[in-house]
Amino acid sequence: MQPSHFTPVPLEKAYRLLNHGPTVLVSASHGGVDNVMSAAWACTLDFTPPKVTVVLDKATRTRELVEASGLFALQLPTVPMAALTVAVGTDSAKTLPDKLAQHGVELFRAPQHSVPLVRGCAAWLVCRLIPEPHNQQAYDLFIGEVVAAWADERVFKDGHWHFDEAPEALRTLHYVAGGQFYATGASVKV
Amino acid sequence: MQPSHFTPVPLEKAYRLLNHGPTVLVSASHGGVDNVMSAAWACTLDFTPPKVTVVLDKATRTRELVEASGLFALQLPTVPMAALTVAVGTDSAKTLPDKLAQHGVELFRAPQHSVPLVRGCAAWLVCRLIPEPHNQQAYDLFIGEVVAAWADERVFKDGHWHFDEAPEALRTLHYVAGGQFYATGASVKV
Repeated sequence: MQPSHFTPVPLEKAYRLLNHGPTVLVSASHGGVDNVMSAAWACTLDFTPPKVTVVLDKATRTRELVEASGLFALQLPTVPMAALTVAVGTDSAKTLPDKLAQHGVELFRAPQHSVPLVRGCAAWLVCRLIPEPHNQQAYDLFIGEVVAAWADERVFKDGHWHFDEAPEALRTLHYVAGGQFYATGASVKV
Repeated sequence: MQPSHFTPVPLEKAYRLLNHGPTVLVSASHGGVDNVMSAAWACTLDFTPPKVTVVLDKATRTRELVEASGLFALQLPTVPMAALTVAVGTDSAKTLPDKLAQHGVELFRAPQHSVPLVRGCAAWLVCRLIPEPHNQQAYDLFIGEVVAAWADERVFKDGHWHFDEAPEALRTLHYVAGGQFYATGASVKV
C-alpha cells in the first residue's frame, strides 16, 4: 500500500526534488531481489526530460540490480531516517542478506512501476538507466532519465518545497561524513 | 589579497566541502578574461583523488573559459550572497560584459593558482578539467579533479563543518528554483 500523502509530481517539476542537494536512498530490484543503499552523490543533470546522476560503487549489490534491470529509484530520506540512511549505506546485502529488515526499511510499489520505493521519504523519483559504460566503469557514475516522480504533498506541493510550513520530521538530509548530516534549513528568498 | 580566515583544506577532506549538496559559484579565466556563474548541479564524484562533476550549459561564457584553460573553481556562496548567486546565474557575460562588477562579485587569487576565486564564500575548490568530450557535448557534464581546496576556518575546521557554531552568515545555500534557496540547517548526528 502506498504511504499517505504520496502524490504525483509533474515531470517538468521533478528536477526541483533534487535541486537542493539532498542525500538519497537508491533502490532497485531484479529477479525477485530488492535492495536499497544510500548515496550522498546524486545530482540533477537536466530539466526536460529530467535526468539525474548518481555514483554507485562497484562493491554494492544495488549497482548489480541497477545494471541488470536498467531501472532505479532515488528517494529523499527525512530527518527521522538518518540512522537508517547511515545503516543501509554501511552494511551491504552481500554480507548482511537481510539488511533491509534489520534496519527497518519498509518498501512499497507505485502502480505500474516495478522498482521498490522506501516508505517515510519526502519524495521519490523512478529512473530509467541511460547506459554509459565508460562513465560507469571509470567513475562509477550512472545517468538516469526520470520517468515518474512523487512527493509527500505536505512538504512538496504545486511544484514547490514547503519545508518551513511542513512538520519538522519531513525535512530532508544532507550528509557530510562520519554519521554527520545537516537538515535542510530555513528558506532564503531573493 | 586573500580573505581573512582563508585556510587550506587537505585534499583527502575536500569531498566534505561539497558532500552536503550546496549550490556553487563556478569561476574560470582565460586570456585575461575572468568569469563567474552559479550552478546548482555540482556534486562530489570521488574521495581520493577528489573529483567533482558540474553541469555547464553551452550558452555560458564560463564554459568557454573552462574548455580553453582546462581549469575551474567551485566555491560555496553563503546566505548573504543569495542575490549575487541568482544574478550571476541569470545574466551572461555574453550580453552583460561587466556582470561581475554590476553584481558586486569581488575576485581574488590564491598563491600559485591562476583561477579567480570569489570573496565571501565558505569554501573553494580549484579543479583541473578531466576532458570527457562525450559527456560535455551530450550532457553538458564536466568532470574535474580537485587540486587545491580552502575553507573559511570559522565554519570548516579540522575536516568538519561547524555551521551550528559559526556565524549564521556563513551558512551555505541550496537552490531550488525561482530565487528560492534553503540554507544549510541544523546538525543531525547519528
